[in-house]
Amino acid sequence: MSSTFGTLLKVVTFGESHGKGVGAVLDGCPSKINLSEADIQRQLDRRRPGQSKLTTKREEPDRVTILSGVENGKTLGVPIGLLVANKDQKPGDYDAMQFVPRPSHADYTYQMKYGIRSVSGGGRSSARETVGRVAAGAIADKFLFETFGIEIVAWVQSVGDVEASFVDVDGISREDVDQTIVRCPDRITADRMIQCIDEVRDRNDSIGGAVTCVCRNVPPGLGEPVFDKVEAKLAQAMLSIPATKGFEIGSGFAGARMLGSQHNDPFILKGERLGTKTNFSGGVQGGITNGEPIVFRVAFKPPATIGVPQKTVDFEGKQTVLEAKGRHDPCVVPRAVAIVECMAALVIGDFALQQKYRET
Amino acid sequence: MSSTFGTLLKVVTFGESHGKGVGAVLDGCPSKINLSEADIQRQLDRRRPGQSKLTTKREEPDRVTILSGVENGKTLGVPIGLLVANKDQKPGDYDAMQFVPRPSHADYTYQMKYGIRSVSGGGRSSARETVGRVAAGAIADKFLFETFGIEIVAWVQSVGDVEASFVDVDGISREDVDQTIVRCPDRITADRMIQCIDEVRDRNDSIGGAVTCVCRNVPPGLGEPVFDKVEAKLAQAMLSIPATKGFEIGSGFAGARMLGSQHNDPFILKGERLGTKTNFSGGVQGGITNGEPIVFRVAFKPPATIGVPQKTVDFEGKQTVLEAKGRHDPCVVPRAVAIVECMAALVIGDFALQQKYRET
Amino acid sequence: MSSTFGTLLKVVTFGESHGKGVGAVLDGCPSKINLSEADIQRQLDRRRPGQSKLTTKREEPDRVTILSGVENGKTLGVPIGLLVANKDQKPGDYDAMQFVPRPSHADYTYQMKYGIRSVSGGGRSSARETVGRVAAGAIADKFLFETFGIEIVAWVQSVGDVEASFVDVDGISREDVDQTIVRCPDRITADRMIQCIDEVRDRNDSIGGAVTCVCRNVPPGLGEPVFDKVEAKLAQAMLSIPATKGFEIGSGFAGARMLGSQHNDPFILKGERLGTKTNFSGGVQGGITNGEPIVFRVAFKPPATIGVPQKTVDFEGKQTVLEAKGRHDPCVVPRAVAIVECMAALVIGDFALQQKYRET
Amino acid sequence: MSSTFGTLLKVVTFGESHGKGVGAVLDGCPSKINLSEADIQRQLDRRRPGQSKLTTKREEPDRVTILSGVENGKTLGVPIGLLVANKDQKPGDYDAMQFVPRPSHADYTYQMKYGIRSVSGGGRSSARETVGRVAAGAIADKFLFETFGIEIVAWVQSVGDVEASFVDVDGISREDVDQTIVRCPDRITADRMIQCIDEVRDRNDSIGGAVTCVCRNVPPGLGEPVFDKVEAKLAQAMLSIPATKGFEIGSGFAGARMLGSQHNDPFILKGERLGTKTNFSGGVQGGITNGEPIVFRVAFKPPATIGVPQKTVDFEGKQTVLEAKGRHDPCVVPRAVAIVECMAALVIGDFALQQKYRET
Repeated sequence: MSSTFGTLLKVVTFGESHGKGVGAVLDGCPSKINLSEADIQRQLDRRRPGQSKLTTKREEPDRVTILSGVENGKTLGVPIGLLVANKDQKPGDYDAMQFVPRPSHADYTYQMKYGIRSVSGGGRSSARETVGRVAAGAIADKFLFETFGIEIVAWVQSVGDVEASFVDVDGISREDVDQTIVRCPDRITADRMIQCIDEVRDRNDSIGGAVTCVCRNVPPGLGEPVFDKVEAKLAQAMLSIPATKGFEIGSGFAGARMLGSQHNDPFILKGERLGTKTNFSGGVQGGITNGEPIVFRVAFKPPATIGVPQKTVDFEGKQTVLEAKGRHDPCVVPRAVAIVECMAALVIGDFALQQKYRET
Repeated sequence: MSSTFGTLLKVVTFGESHGKGVGAVLDGCPSKINLSEADIQRQLDRRRPGQSKLTTKREEPDRVTILSGVENGKTLGVPIGLLVANKDQKPGDYDAMQFVPRPSHADYTYQMKYGIRSVSGGGRSSARETVGRVAAGAIADKFLFETFGIEIVAWVQSVGDVEASFVDVDGISREDVDQTIVRCPDRITADRMIQCIDEVRDRNDSIGGAVTCVCRNVPPGLGEPVFDKVEAKLAQAMLSIPATKGFEIGSGFAGARMLGSQHNDPFILKGERLGTKTNFSGGVQGGITNGEPIVFRVAFKPPATIGVPQKTVDFEGKQTVLEAKGRHDPCVVPRAVAIVECMAALVIGDFALQQKYRET
Repeated sequence: MSSTFGTLLKVVTFGESHGKGVGAVLDGCPSKINLSEADIQRQLDRRRPGQSKLTTKREEPDRVTILSGVENGKTLGVPIGLLVANKDQKPGDYDAMQFVPRPSHADYTYQMKYGIRSVSGGGRSSARETVGRVAAGAIADKFLFETFGIEIVAWVQSVGDVEASFVDVDGISREDVDQTIVRCPDRITADRMIQCIDEVRDRNDSIGGAVTCVCRNVPPGLGEPVFDKVEAKLAQAMLSIPATKGFEIGSGFAGARMLGSQHNDPFILKGERLGTKTNFSGGVQGGITNGEPIVFRVAFKPPATIGVPQKTVDFEGKQTVLEAKGRHDPCVVPRAVAIVECMAALVIGDFALQQKYRET
Repeated sequence: MSSTFGTLLKVVTFGESHGKGVGAVLDGCPSKINLSEADIQRQLDRRRPGQSKLTTKREEPDRVTILSGVENGKTLGVPIGLLVANKDQKPGDYDAMQFVPRPSHADYTYQMKYGIRSVSGGGRSSARETVGRVAAGAIADKFLFETFGIEIVAWVQSVGDVEASFVDVDGISREDVDQTIVRCPDRITADRMIQCIDEVRDRNDSIGGAVTCVCRNVPPGLGEPVFDKVEAKLAQAMLSIPATKGFEIGSGFAGARMLGSQHNDPFILKGERLGTKTNFSGGVQGGITNGEPIVFRVAFKPPATIGVPQKTVDFEGKQTVLEAKGRHDPCVVPRAVAIVECMAALVIGDFALQQKYRET
């Protein structure tokens, strides 16, 4: 029921991993935005499978078609239909799953919820569902940058125990991030991350990781307390991405160990406007942006589909051993960077539009 | 604009810290539920100020009145109006705030968003706003227990660096939690937490902490992917509580450091139904409950209002030193336990009602 | 479940006819609007019972209290809580209804829907529920006038077969309408309407009527196609008022008998802007306002509660004769005028706020 | 912003008249419903252009493709993507419109709202937009019939002044309706309607009409007061269809002229359940279904695009004469029958799902 997200900027996604295609409808995008398929393709290319040795070998070109809402290169202010055809379907790989629910995957829960499930490829629970989000989010990302100058950049913060050291949240760009296939802008750490993923894949295992994201030039005043606070909707958006287990904004869980006298961000004058000296708040206070960079982190668990044999039971409760074949990512974070950015753009884009009714 | 939360079970809260009262309207509560003001009062008492030496000395009895929706002790299925009058108002304490935005509080952002703000007591950004959530959530909590047998129990997991050791998520009760004023069921740790808070308060400082929550007996199949996944709506609900900075479900950020072969939860037969051997998933898979306990954690920053003098600037950018007087909590987590439980009840309650349309 | 209405300007109403009170929470009202209880009281006084010999003799002063959202006479941009205490409760009048569902009232359907119902006074199905709408709508009405100069005026168009002749939609004011107790600005017809209602009441019967409403100075561009067209949301708003059976905009059902060459409204230049020569469209084209006055009509059936003995059956199906006592309106339209205006204000207010995100 | 409709059963439509295609995503459809493209095609064929001499000569086969949500002929409970490619585009026909807003069409209002508009064919304001509604509504129609036995049948009640006499609301079927190309089940009147439309078309003019719709076997208890009453959401749904100007349920505007003693529907025993002797209520009381047939009427204005020369002004205010070429319907009601049924199905379907959470 809830493949729909947003208040004024509303997205609905559709499509299963092994059906005709996946896509989205973006309702509420402002009119007169310059928009081409290439604008959207850029982010889809950053999330598509087969882009590097770190990702699944499935080759899906993931070419987007704009079905509606754009005429002569400009948005009309009406729903934008987006479709990506599914190309590389190998239903055979998934046969065992018909009787055995994969551990930590959604086979069992979808069956319990709907009394039926897509037996090939995980259906809606597949990471392929995020194609629609990325396509729609890329549009939000574009108008946020063009209209407000807002920049959203995410990167891989950690893979397993390998953690990036200092990243300059004020200066980092997507180009910096894309310098390495693992999408960690700290080059030395990036090499160690790549090595870590290589080893894990060679053992037919998988590994978790974390993504950090910064949103810069966000004007103060965005966010809709008390339930649609900036951090609340970002948290929902991020925890709706497959394989996520945690969300932190600003100081996050580390903030729970601090004193108020350490954690408070004193105000200072930054040019014409008030800013804060530190940014433990992560760019939000009382659920509303304060003009400082929004900084948040997202935890991704290791992918559930692994080649390592797993002792489990089938739907009837009979013991069995599951050994996934298929072609799966050993680690999702390099591809997740674009998904995190696009979901953040949908959230911030919605807030930016909502705030406009308060301006005079 | 968004003091409204929920799809079928919808709550709107209202009220400022120093106005006539705070409250909520709960729309969508099932009919024929036994409900009295005492049922709601129980949770309000657990969140009210002045309940122990660990909380602010403001004494607010926070007596709830049911304005509508209940007749002869039973819910009618129509909106339930809930009102708690404000009693103990000392506007004088807040005078300096008119010109100086308190660091890490919402004075500045509310002013930027609305072009006006409640100058006494923080208005809607005050923790007092949570009275309405707790009142509404206590009703959800009641029908979840009576209709489904669902039990929701939260406790203080950490205060600063003091962290509870083992807590039995399968057995813990609210009575266990309430054994100590800090609401940590691990008695030895509880003493150290109390001591920590005492010391912090004596220094006019404040300290952060974390709350863990378990939801037991939740049937499999709840949750509305892809955007209203269980963890996504729980994350939104928790990050909408004042002072929160992080959310984790199941393995959380620790899961980002694990291998798939460690993290996957193998299925086993538990009586008549499938269960999982471990619960790194935290009770959800693919955004849908799997019948295992839902376990999540919430990080709370240290309260922003501290007596320690703070160098900051006023709205004009002029340097000043702020020294809050007022009466404030040195640590919010002992009172936050009830808020976390009530917000969880609103989320799970909404999912439980939504799932009913799929049953036949 | 759906006592909530609106997208950015959201109202929830609560309260039964014989409970503690009725009211509303208005979420999304712009900040910095001058607002006092007197502003709201004006419209409540026009809908309250006992205001003239044409209405029920129940005397309810219906004094509103603003519970939240306003400080020093200005709105804060946060939810405005509104409460009207119930004063004049005579539960005894309604005893027979416990066993016999009143024909064309909601006793039977509420029982079937909720498995329970408020046995005293109709609960939520009572016209008393509209107090909350009027209180909230009066606020929308105020900011529409102050911010945009929008004027909303409704009047009684017909009572039974007695129909008002020409009313000047461009000039009519609420003062004109209130010149007669029946609220028909055509004085001669008004006298006949009053006489008609007097006769009907003397026979213990009731009679239907129609209300026409005009919204002037509405800027072009409001309305959210394709589902939230202006006429669509007005129709929903009007048909949600108790006792309504029909809605027409512009030409209405008469338009269904016309030729395109008669019905089309040619464009002409009106000062600086385009206007239309005729207004069969009723101020909307393609679901969006065109700057001409929005004109619509609402049909109200005769009140269901009548003193005339009615042959019917009880809940068990046993034949009986029902003879309502109580004190009821013989005709709802004189009091409905304020309700229609306030619901229109909520609809137009929401559209006005939504459109602001498209302006640059 | 509001191409989205519904609470649990949610539809979003997309597509312009002269873009790549039109379609819809239906979110919330129950799982395990048998569904094929043929099921949907049936209603699309009844609304498509070129189906008889009464409709525009544009030939659009309007073949639907199910993009997602169905596997092996059964719904999965996830979003169903629906696409109809646009075939017959003749942008040349619309050239004059670039500078002259067509009277009573949406060129002017779209331009005012969005600052841009689709210059070819009306974009979203075109009746072509209803393809998505019909495709989605056909699915709701199917599960309403299969799950609840609910039957929805609409027919042409009037064309201009030609009005159908008695139609048996209890027995009429879609087959009866489709016996004549004008879709009026009263054969003699149908001939006169056809003759009327022929004459109007020969004069390059257009004419209005009305559609009546009955929903049978709807269980008592559906509808979500106080704002989402059955009649309120039906009214919104109907007034969101292009060219509609009015909505009536049950007695409608005629009810506004009746006495309560005439209008009240006395209860009688109908087999095991309570029914009503008359049905002036139109199947709803207090906004909730009472088990009697829901009967409502919708007024359609004459199509705005006519060949008759019209004196009007261009966007600059300069006088001009407009003479539409293109190929347009002289009367929309024969094709509107399927649209009315499908919109009714979306409304009733949503209510049916919502009510399930109240059953035990």
